[in-house]
Amino acid sequence: MRKGHRAGPLFTDLYELTMGACYYAHRVFDTATFSLYLRDVRATRNFFVAAGLEDTLNELADFHFSKEEIQYLNSTGFFQDDFLSYLSELRFSGNIHALPEGTIFFANEPILEVTAPIIEAQLLETFLLNTIGFQTMIASKSARCIHAADGRALIDFSLRRTQGRDAGLKVARSTFISGFAATSNVLAGKIYGIPVSGTMAHSYVSAFKNERDAFFAYFDTFPDNSIFLIDTYDTLEGAKNAAVVAKEMKKRGHALVGVRLDSGDMAALSREVRKILDDAGLLEVRIFASSGFDEFKIEKVLSQGAKIDAFGVGTKVGVSADAPFVDVVYKMVRFKGQDKRKLSPGKITLAGAKQVFRKTDPSGRYIEDIIGLREEKMDEGEPLLEMVMENGRPTRSHPTLQTLRKRFEINFSCLDKKYKSLGTRTTYPVKLSRRLKDLQERVKIQ
Amino acid sequence: MRKGHRAGPLFTDLYELTMGACYYAHRVFDTATFSLYLRDVRATRNFFVAAGLEDTLNELADFHFSKEEIQYLNSTGFFQDDFLSYLSELRFSGNIHALPEGTIFFANEPILEVTAPIIEAQLLETFLLNTIGFQTMIASKSARCIHAADGRALIDFSLRRTQGRDAGLKVARSTFISGFAATSNVLAGKIYGIPVSGTMAHSYVSAFKNERDAFFAYFDTFPDNSIFLIDTYDTLEGAKNAAVVAKEMKKRGHALVGVRLDSGDMAALSREVRKILDDAGLLEVRIFASSGFDEFKIEKVLSQGAKIDAFGVGTKVGVSADAPFVDVVYKMVRFKGQDKRKLSPGKITLAGAKQVFRKTDPSGRYIEDIIGLREEKMDEGEPLLEMVMENGRPTRSHPTLQTLRKRFEINFSCLDKKYKSLGTRTTYPVKLSRRLKDLQERVKIQ
Repeated sequence: MRKGHRAGPLFTDLYELTMGACYYAHRVFDTATFSLYLRDVRATRNFFVAAGLEDTLNELADFHFSKEEIQYLNSTGFFQDDFLSYLSELRFSGNIHALPEGTIFFANEPILEVTAPIIEAQLLETFLLNTIGFQTMIASKSARCIHAADGRALIDFSLRRTQGRDAGLKVARSTFISGFAATSNVLAGKIYGIPVSGTMAHSYVSAFKNERDAFFAYFDTFPDNSIFLIDTYDTLEGAKNAAVVAKEMKKRGHALVGVRLDSGDMAALSREVRKILDDAGLLEVRIFASSGFDEFKIEKVLSQGAKIDAFGVGTKVGVSADAPFVDVVYKMVRFKGQDKRKLSPGKITLAGAKQVFRKTDPSGRYIEDIIGLREEKMDEGEPLLEMVMENGRPTRSHPTLQTLRKRFEINFSCLDKKYKSLGTRTTYPVKLSRRLKDLQERVKIQ
Repeated sequence: MRKGHRAGPLFTDLYELTMGACYYAHRVFDTATFSLYLRDVRATRNFFVAAGLEDTLNELADFHFSKEEIQYLNSTGFFQDDFLSYLSELRFSGNIHALPEGTIFFANEPILEVTAPIIEAQLLETFLLNTIGFQTMIASKSARCIHAADGRALIDFSLRRTQGRDAGLKVARSTFISGFAATSNVLAGKIYGIPVSGTMAHSYVSAFKNERDAFFAYFDTFPDNSIFLIDTYDTLEGAKNAAVVAKEMKKRGHALVGVRLDSGDMAALSREVRKILDDAGLLEVRIFASSGFDEFKIEKVLSQGAKIDAFGVGTKVGVSADAPFVDVVYKMVRFKGQDKRKLSPGKITLAGAKQVFRKTDPSGRYIEDIIGLREEKMDEGEPLLEMVMENGRPTRSHPTLQTLRKRFEINFSCLDKKYKSLGTRTTYPVKLSRRLKDLQERVKIQ
């Protein structure tokens, strides 16, 4: 997050504030625990990748209402002076337990739990759902692309069609956590230090007298960093023009990085382009492909024998087009020292502050998860949620993006391939501990 | 847009800058015209509603690279000093023609055209596609909801699941342009002056000993501004509890605004709740409904005879779930005084700087649109694109949101009902003028 770009406490649904006013008026300041998790009722994903925690902690560490924000609230006519005065002094004083970013997890497992005076915990709801939900959705979608690409490089090209500006930045960051190699998004490069990558547009090629001139001009400006877009007029003619220019570059001691295909039958064209390049002795020139790629199209063209070395992945991943929202919820699970549970049909909540324990086999492969009580100790099973904020203060500095990326990579390698399959729904075993189960029974009886 | 929150010129794909560097190195500074339009290749919408222009003009009026931004570009190693020095002096100096926000338009019609030195025009591409594309998508989706709701009030509840923060703000603004009554998004209330609205959550109700206590506490705090959520335990019992509290409120000289349903069979429940309220003499208490509403669900429950006065519309509209991106493109149509056209199969561009002329019948109803050349004069047909920026300077101040809302309302009332139908694809007649057609033939021959 850029400094000075806090979302601020007005990034909230009005009802968080009206409920807060009610609690305040009735002197309800007791401690509550809220649990944030994904329901995945539409069953679109076998697994998820946690993301969004850094933004969350930055925001909470700086949680306060400015004078201007209080003035606006006053102008709405909803709030009494004493409550506004209370808000103007409010800071976040609670504890946060969360999955570190890059952690693989499953539906119904807590991603983040807030324990704080109820007004504070309530005021965070909208912000947390938005921040964790969106970034987790994108990290999860892009992990599927990484699987489909089977070792080939992926580059985030989504910026022009993400849902707004913040989304563009967060897509670059979340896809990078899940193993993308680079982004076209220059601002994300600056803010997050992600490698930036780019080629040229059709308009560029057509601004020159002919394709070869356009390639020569680009090579002249970027002698060691050129990727030529070859489909402006005809992909195979474009490949031949690229080969002519690339051979000239070689003579002058430089090398063409690659060519990019952006239309047509990618599998067939890529094979023909590979042959043109190879026949010209340009074995090192890589083939990039873009245009509507997501995990499904990547898997399809590779199964058709495409000779593609890297994919530019855009819109469909940047908006998670096949599942453009996650069923993320934030539910009260404990209040005034009592565990709480919602029993509406189809919307069951698990009472109690929780921990997730992950069991692995001797090789490290994930076997099953146990959702237990926060304070439970288990001989087997690594606890996944960490206390990241205590009494309103971060317990650690942010891990680097490289650390998060590495965590994802290790997590992903420990997840059995059957859960990564795109088409089929395979449910990873998530069980409840005996003590958590017993608690649910007790809460039901109450 | 908030002051100080400019996207900035790094909100761009790297290739816009590498192409710019190439043009610069080869002294290509000629004027280009780019046209931004929607292809709607997936045929998801019969009409669109223009939005995003205010953000666009704010950004262009302040277009410049800061020292820090130039330093970052330098650190990437892509760019030569002379180009960076050129960028550091660059301001937007071109002309913009655009559809005013709130205008109804159709696929393939230009929404915005940029005429500027090619480097400037190119550098804007990513920002324009993102800004206009997203806001237009949301304004178009919400117009469909307005049609389905048939006069009932709609409130934007999407903030918790929009794709990031900026999206949350822009959804509130775009839905308001298309006629939504209010938003739950407090920040949007502050920034845009949109009315804010909100009720209570299930967690609020369950934080009290029983539902009636929760309602009384809320009434006590908001005696003239209460909407009770009645489905935490049982919707009909909730309605009875709400009626008890509402009658007490009446005695004390206040009135309950409404009750909110958030689960179950909305058509059946709303009728039963209406009866409970009416039987208690609470004819003035309105019924609000939320939970998964979009134009399709609104149309469905109303066709089933739901007694609902207002809908809280959330996630599915906030991410345009049935069509979460638009096929928005930005194509060069004129360069160095020559009209340009792309001829790739399925991706035809119309050469030339353009205008859209709308023909209406005597009652004002839209009959057909003619896409013509910018400088054409037509006896019939109102030109829709306005020059909003000339030589880099805005030609006017921003219209108020109320003005945009009014424009949409009038536009929408002039659009025949058959184009508003949700299920069926009905194509509004969009023709090319004779002169524009002739131009396409000439460009094809070149």
